[in-house]
Amino acid sequence: MKIAVLPGDGIGTEIVAEAVRVLDALDLKFEMESALVGGAAYDAHGHPLPEATLKLAKEADAVLFGAVGDWKYDTLDRPLRPEQAILGLRKNLGLFANFRPAICYEQLVNASSLKPELVAGLDILIIRELTGDIYFGQPRGRRTAVDGHFPGAEEAFDTMRYSRPEIERIARVAFEAARKRNKKVTSVDKANVLETFQFWKDVVTEVHKEYPDVELEHMYVDNAAMQLVKKPKAFDVIVTGNMFGDILSDEASMLTGSIGMLPSASLNSSNQGLYEPSHGSAPDIAGKGVANPLATILSAAMMLRFSLNQEEAATRIENAVKKVLAQGLRTPDIWSEGTTKVGTREMGDAVLKAM
Amino acid sequence: MKIAVLPGDGIGTEIVAEAVRVLDALDLKFEMESALVGGAAYDAHGHPLPEATLKLAKEADAVLFGAVGDWKYDTLDRPLRPEQAILGLRKNLGLFANFRPAICYEQLVNASSLKPELVAGLDILIIRELTGDIYFGQPRGRRTAVDGHFPGAEEAFDTMRYSRPEIERIARVAFEAARKRNKKVTSVDKANVLETFQFWKDVVTEVHKEYPDVELEHMYVDNAAMQLVKKPKAFDVIVTGNMFGDILSDEASMLTGSIGMLPSASLNSSNQGLYEPSHGSAPDIAGKGVANPLATILSAAMMLRFSLNQEEAATRIENAVKKVLAQGLRTPDIWSEGTTKVGTREMGDAVLKAM
Ligand SMILES: CC(C)[C@H](C(=O)O)[C@@H](O)C(=O)O
Ligand SMILES: CC(C)[C@H](C(=O)O)[C@@H](O)C(=O)O
Repeated sequence: MKIAVLPGDGIGTEIVAEAVRVLDALDLKFEMESALVGGAAYDAHGHPLPEATLKLAKEADAVLFGAVGDWKYDTLDRPLRPEQAILGLRKNLGLFANFRPAICYEQLVNASSLKPELVAGLDILIIRELTGDIYFGQPRGRRTAVDGHFPGAEEAFDTMRYSRPEIERIARVAFEAARKRNKKVTSVDKANVLETFQFWKDVVTEVHKEYPDVELEHMYVDNAAMQLVKKPKAFDVIVTGNMFGDILSDEASMLTGSIGMLPSASLNSSNQGLYEPSHGSAPDIAGKGVANPLATILSAAMMLRFSLNQEEAATRIENAVKKVLAQGLRTPDIWSEGTTKVGTREMGDAVLKAM
Repeated sequence: MKIAVLPGDGIGTEIVAEAVRVLDALDLKFEMESALVGGAAYDAHGHPLPEATLKLAKEADAVLFGAVGDWKYDTLDRPLRPEQAILGLRKNLGLFANFRPAICYEQLVNASSLKPELVAGLDILIIRELTGDIYFGQPRGRRTAVDGHFPGAEEAFDTMRYSRPEIERIARVAFEAARKRNKKVTSVDKANVLETFQFWKDVVTEVHKEYPDVELEHMYVDNAAMQLVKKPKAFDVIVTGNMFGDILSDEASMLTGSIGMLPSASLNSSNQGLYEPSHGSAPDIAGKGVANPLATILSAAMMLRFSLNQEEAATRIENAVKKVLAQGLRTPDIWSEGTTKVGTREMGDAVLKAM
């Protein structure tokens, strides 16, 4: 078993280092190999996703990813910016199924912006399609408008699109996941305005026939953005497209108060996967040793479960994380009165000890 | 001065009736004429936006709109569904600038899902572009995919697009609005992925040069969805495209706890406008006399101010609404222990009395 380790930028290196220590402690036989990605790769090789990094990722069974991005790259041409690395990995590895749990940890109920009673016990799973939609649709670019409100004016455009098999496969992933949970799927669309999402709704409805034991509900994206705030616990599994999933999964993770704790997995059809924390590269706190490594450590656990078939090791890590939380250890992002503030390394130490 | 009154479906008729009584009580010289729209118009005339309704709206100085939609129309072909009426009105009247205040009323602080300290005093203004973007872009439809992941498969597609003058005019509206407020504009985009929104960001940055007294900040839409939950009071004016604005304005209004209280205005370049509550047609409570008419009454106030140049009358209505809230009167949607529950009509009566 081979793991490609791509720490990336900002706090990426610090948090991935802790996850690697945790993996090392498991005494499982896997090979880990690191490579540069994002801004760090651009600085060293002039490209955010160098050929060698992509090759390593493709050959590995799983990729452990930190985070990419920093304001200093904002002025680069788009193809050279750090985020292109993550888009390139998704596309080249065919990672179409993105799993983003939004869980409110019991001990962090008070860290949420929402009232405690609305989030206590919250456990929803957002499944975002990750290789289609307006993220990758062609054509796109700039041109002179031929119609619309200002024919003759300069305009920019993109193409949103989904094909039947793309919708079918992500719908199946969602129904399968719901079967192992509370048997409810909310498919989020904008069928009242978009052709793409009317089709999405139609195809999800068809696939649902194969899963009569799972409840399917359809919801417009604007309403979903509201219901997540109003009554988040009414959801179980949410399935949606790449663009809506980007927005809703970030909204949902912030609601939990646990964003520094939330892992994510992006899988392809052979269960090869990329695992990364739900949060970003946080350049403002990079290098200070205060970042929360738990989302990355929990991403490593997800990796063991989904791509490396090591359920037991995954559970061992997850239990260790629960234990350190119960001990009252907190990095600054989740700290509150009465708990003990620790740094990135100390938190890693504590998880190792708890294992 | 002529006002087109379009109550629409669901609770639309009840809440608009109260707003009309309030307008009548002003003793101003305007003519009001009603017409059917949405499902009600489809039932009577076979189309959600009949020619006569559109003509009336075009000839009026302002449109007072209730709400449209009901599940029973879900199976109709898209062009016949109630929502097409609102899209048709926006397009035909050129209503490109949508104003959606997200205000947390002092007395409703506890109705919010968010912790009181995060929303007390919240007052942000979302300015959504309303006639462009993927809502109206051509081409759109279904076809056989020629490229992408599954060439040969059936696919559906839409076109996102913005031209320079469309972005310029909405950016100006936002900067002008910010000048009268706290002088800060947050432009929300997805420039890291979309050509359309890289162009958006570039053009907004150019227009900003005309407004050196206003602060401009750029934010990705996924981050904006998070920051609205985390620290909503950090915003002043948010400006964004049609699709992102649809999602973020609904999220923001739900955060306030005041959604039954929030008006909206959609204006064209000659200040002709359509005014409607931010909430929907709520078919589940239609006809029960329990809907909150205040968002519609406040929309009528916005109409007096923006399209009819009756600032004084607008303020009179707004003060009356504040008064009834201070008296402790509440429709069920905003009711809490210790306040007096009233119905739609009683709330209208109370506003009239307070004027
Ligand atoms: C960095 C960016 C391209 C990316 C996305 O939009 O998918 C990020 O927001 C995410 O959700 O992983
Ligand atoms: C009904 C629908 C077409 C509409 C939209 O998406 O614009 C609504 O959600 C709104 O925000 O006014």
